[in-house]
Amino acid sequence: MKLFYAPTSPYVRKVMVTAHELGLADGIEKLPSAAHPVKRDERIALANPLAKIPAAITPEGDTLFDSRVICEYLDANVPGRHLFPAEQKARWRALTLQALGDGLLDAALLSRYEMTARPEARQWADWVQGQMTKVDGALARLEEHVETLSGPLTIGLITIGCALGYLDFRFAHRPWREDHPRLAAWYAVFAERPSMQATIPRDAS
Amino acid sequence: MKLFYAPTSPYVRKVMVTAHELGLADGIEKLPSAAHPVKRDERIALANPLAKIPAAITPEGDTLFDSRVICEYLDANVPGRHLFPAEQKARWRALTLQALGDGLLDAALLSRYEMTARPEARQWADWVQGQMTKVDGALARLEEHVETLSGPLTIGLITIGCALGYLDFRFAHRPWREDHPRLAAWYAVFAERPSMQATIPRDAS
Repeated sequence: MKLFYAPTSPYVRKVMVTAHELGLADGIEKLPSAAHPVKRDERIALANPLAKIPAAITPEGDTLFDSRVICEYLDANVPGRHLFPAEQKARWRALTLQALGDGLLDAALLSRYEMTARPEARQWADWVQGQMTKVDGALARLEEHVETLSGPLTIGLITIGCALGYLDFRFAHRPWREDHPRLAAWYAVFAERPSMQATIPRDAS
Repeated sequence: MKLFYAPTSPYVRKVMVTAHELGLADGIEKLPSAAHPVKRDERIALANPLAKIPAAITPEGDTLFDSRVICEYLDANVPGRHLFPAEQKARWRALTLQALGDGLLDAALLSRYEMTARPEARQWADWVQGQMTKVDGALARLEEHVETLSGPLTIGLITIGCALGYLDFRFAHRPWREDHPRLAAWYAVFAERPSMQATIPRDAS
C-alpha cells in the first residue's frame, strides 16, 4: 500500500501505529506530502480531492481515505479482526472513542492553524478558545472515565494515544498531565508500545 | 434512541436519512441542541464533550458519536446489513465515498463559520478560498466519476446526497449544477427519495 505521509500528522500516525500493531508497517510505501489548509498540495489532490492526509492507494489501485477508512482496511487485511471489534457493544465503544480522539485532534489542529497559518491580524481569540474548550472537554471526559481505556487494544485506544502525543508535540506550552493524573498514567504505559515509539512525531528536516 | 438534533445540520441529516431508509425514524427521540464552534451547548457536552452533533444515546444508555458511528449502529440494528457493505471492496468504496462527502461538508462548514460566526475584521479570504477549493475538488471528482454513485444505496451515497443538499441550503449563491451536469442529474433523482424529502433542511423557526 502507498500512503501519502508526513511525520507530523497525527492522523497519519494513527495509520502507522495501526500498521505496526498489525505487522504491516514494512509493506507501506511512504509518498511525500505537505498538506496545508490554504496551500493545496496537488500531489495529494490527485488521489484525494480534499488534499488531506492520510490518503492511501491499495495494491489494486483503489484510493482510500481518511484515517478511519485506511485503518479499518488494514485491520481487515489481517486474519482475525484485531483493532475494530466485531462484537457490537465493543465496536460502538471503540468507534466512539476513535471519534472522541479524532474530534480532539480536529479541534487542536484548528487552533494550531489559527495561530500559525493565519495572519496575526485575522486571528480570533474566541475561535481558539472554543476549540481548546473541546480539547479540554475531551481530556476531562477521559480522565473521569479512564476505564474506557482498559481492555484489549482497539482503534479507539490508538486514536487517543496519537491525540495525546499530538498535544505533547504541538501544545507542549499547555501541559495536560497535572490535571489528568489517571490519563497521564495510562499514556505513560501506552506511549512505550513499540508502535508508538516507532512513530514519534518530528518536524520535517 | 435519543438524538441531539438540529434541522440545519447536514451530519444530523445523514443520521435521519439513514434512519428513514432503515425504517427506524419513528424510534428516534429528538433532543433540542444548538451546536456552535464558539458558543458551547452544555446540553450536548454532557453526552459528547466535543459539543458537536449528532450525538446519540442508545436505549442501553451508551453514548454514540459522530455521524459515521451512529449510522453504522443503526444499520447494524436491522437484520441483513444494508448501507455499510460487508463485502470488502464495496465496503472501502462506500466508506471512502462517505469520507469524501464528510470532507466536503467539513470544508463547507468551515467556510460558513468564517463568514457568519467570525467578526468581519477577523475573516481571512485565503481560508475561505482554501476550503472552497476542497469543495470544488470534491465536486469535480464526483462529476468525473459519477459512476461511483450508481449501484445499491450505501452510506456513501447518503453522505453525498446530504452534502449536495447542504450546498443548496447554505451556498445557493454559489450554484454547482451548471458545471456538474452528470452529478446534478444523479442528485435530481436521489433528492426525490422519501428519506431525503422528509429531511429537507430548514432554519429553526
